[in-house]
Amino acid sequence: MPEKIITTGLRGMEIAETKIVKLDHELKTILYRGYDLKDLAEKSCFEEVAYLLIKGRLPTRQKLQEFSKCLLENQVCQYTREANKLKIILDQISRNTHPMDILKFAVSFFGATTNSNQKTEILAINLLAKILSILEWITKANFKSLWLPNKSFTENTLRKITFKPPTPLAKKAFDISLMLYAEHELAASTFNARVTASTLSDYFSCILSAIGALKGPLHGGANEAVMQMLMEINDTKLTRKWIENALSKGQKIMGFGHPVYKNGDPRSPIIESYAKKLSEESREWKWYAMSKIIEEILLKEKGLYPNLDFYTATVYKLLDIPIKLFTPIFVLSRLTGWTAHIIEQQANNKIIRPGAKYVGLEKQIYIDIGERN
Amino acid sequence: MPEKIITTGLRGMEIAETKIVKLDHELKTILYRGYDLKDLAEKSCFEEVAYLLIKGRLPTRQKLQEFSKCLLENQVCQYTREANKLKIILDQISRNTHPMDILKFAVSFFGATTNSNQKTEILAINLLAKILSILEWITKANFKSLWLPNKSFTENTLRKITFKPPTPLAKKAFDISLMLYAEHELAASTFNARVTASTLSDYFSCILSAIGALKGPLHGGANEAVMQMLMEINDTKLTRKWIENALSKGQKIMGFGHPVYKNGDPRSPIIESYAKKLSEESREWKWYAMSKIIEEILLKEKGLYPNLDFYTATVYKLLDIPIKLFTPIFVLSRLTGWTAHIIEQQANNKIIRPGAKYVGLEKQIYIDIGERN
Repeated sequence: MPEKIITTGLRGMEIAETKIVKLDHELKTILYRGYDLKDLAEKSCFEEVAYLLIKGRLPTRQKLQEFSKCLLENQVCQYTREANKLKIILDQISRNTHPMDILKFAVSFFGATTNSNQKTEILAINLLAKILSILEWITKANFKSLWLPNKSFTENTLRKITFKPPTPLAKKAFDISLMLYAEHELAASTFNARVTASTLSDYFSCILSAIGALKGPLHGGANEAVMQMLMEINDTKLTRKWIENALSKGQKIMGFGHPVYKNGDPRSPIIESYAKKLSEESREWKWYAMSKIIEEILLKEKGLYPNLDFYTATVYKLLDIPIKLFTPIFVLSRLTGWTAHIIEQQANNKIIRPGAKYVGLEKQIYIDIGERN
Repeated sequence: MPEKIITTGLRGMEIAETKIVKLDHELKTILYRGYDLKDLAEKSCFEEVAYLLIKGRLPTRQKLQEFSKCLLENQVCQYTREANKLKIILDQISRNTHPMDILKFAVSFFGATTNSNQKTEILAINLLAKILSILEWITKANFKSLWLPNKSFTENTLRKITFKPPTPLAKKAFDISLMLYAEHELAASTFNARVTASTLSDYFSCILSAIGALKGPLHGGANEAVMQMLMEINDTKLTRKWIENALSKGQKIMGFGHPVYKNGDPRSPIIESYAKKLSEESREWKWYAMSKIIEEILLKEKGLYPNLDFYTATVYKLLDIPIKLFTPIFVLSRLTGWTAHIIEQQANNKIIRPGAKYVGLEKQIYIDIGERN
């Protein structure tokens, strides 16, 4: 069975050109199609960023309204043929199924029932709306009953999964988290989407590949893992001891470090500021205070900085979002970045087919089955 | 929108070590865990090769019997709870759905209903059996009714999809095609499976990523495309003119060339010899004769050699396998190689996360939505 082999993880290798995103280490920021993520976070909304990534430019007010209308109209509505079919298939799996497995099951259903020859950006807007509907299903085993047409996609999403109208701060915090998660160059999930696209396979196959990779705890599952840790500690005073104990056992603390950032993730301070503001508004300081202690220890002991996932856990907790939705929300957001990369790959394609170095047995003499032991 | 960007396709780059397979350009053969594919094709059967890839060594007779028993027992049986649930979900999608989309839908169902914490090799054997059941569904919209326990997995598969007992030659030809398709290093689908595994995601997510990539016409869809071309030409005498005309229009002829072979695919002569033998046995020479003409022209005009997909099309046609099953059969076979790579990745993991070179716009000034045009 497999012994020691080496995989480089392709770390630090530029394996494609892209016009979608720049991880600007010099300016300590990220550019989405040339726009500074800090500007976007402050002045834009998730729908604008989704439009920017999928369509390549920022929308005018009219274009944004059309885009939002599509996101409204393509959701799954109760009592329709589509909702009925979805209910039938989703009823065949347990309500306790991992939410990412529910999402994959639903997306493969959409893949089997949608004409995938349509333009990729059309398929993407449609699927973005449908994925919101699946989040709704995961929350309450039903489809669209609460939709306010004069509210943004983000606000509607938040209402659907928390069953309450958000404060302006809550709305902004959630919107910003979606903008921050929307795109991050060749993350494993995005890379998978491009590999699938490179065989000229269909859009849904690309997205399924990406969701499968995002499910992994080393990728999209990280904010969930952070929250589970915080809930396990659950006491500001016990935090230091818990973390030091974990570190002494060689345990990995989730939400720290990142393959592409050595000196901190530029998205982290943005989301941290909202973790702080939300703690202030709700007068619930526990999660933020514990997080600050953990941040301090990890920097001192390991030289590691928090990544986007770390303070997002506190933000989502304070927004009353169920933990099981943390990674599916990541899908909702990152679908926009995946789509941008699929379109870019399709526009100038070469099948992605690397090689491997063989380090196994040299040619063996074949032994007939009767003589093997 | 995306203009010219460059993707290298990672061609010729050794991005991991492997003990599973050696594409031995010097010996003009392929080694599966050290065993020459020519030896395996001649002396083994697909179940032995599946065992070799998944478990790392060739089985004894007793181990092979246990393995075959698992492949029998894990199939979907009519009138069971599992079969009923599967029928319900599959009845929600059209019978005309692309077979690869049916497979993805079914595999995502298995992913949602199977405890994926079991050992990867257990999950693989189970899924291999289930995928055969889905091929059966694609053929006749029902599950296991015809199973002969004293026949091999391969023979049972062939009977289920062609509704007749195969001749010894037909059996051997099909068995060999499955052995040849079982493993081929870091093909796009296999690479996807490894990327997904590298995030520590579950087995079913890895396999879904792989199936999605295999669906692409530049990958698994090729033998199907070859057959469609042969059926369109459908006349030995018209072949030369058809191909020359296609080439003059710059049309790509499927089934020729391969990113990793410049001087011919070592699997092609093996499968070609069975295309010839089957033509002899059936006295149906048309497909083979057309293929020989095309091979000759492509070598002369383009310097290209046929790959495994080219003569496999003729073999499958002569075995009376419906074209729509060509790529799903590839899944059945390659599942074994994918599994070997997933296990190898899991055994010494590092998340696969490459980088990209940014060639887009430099930092743009943010313009408020009211002022955009």
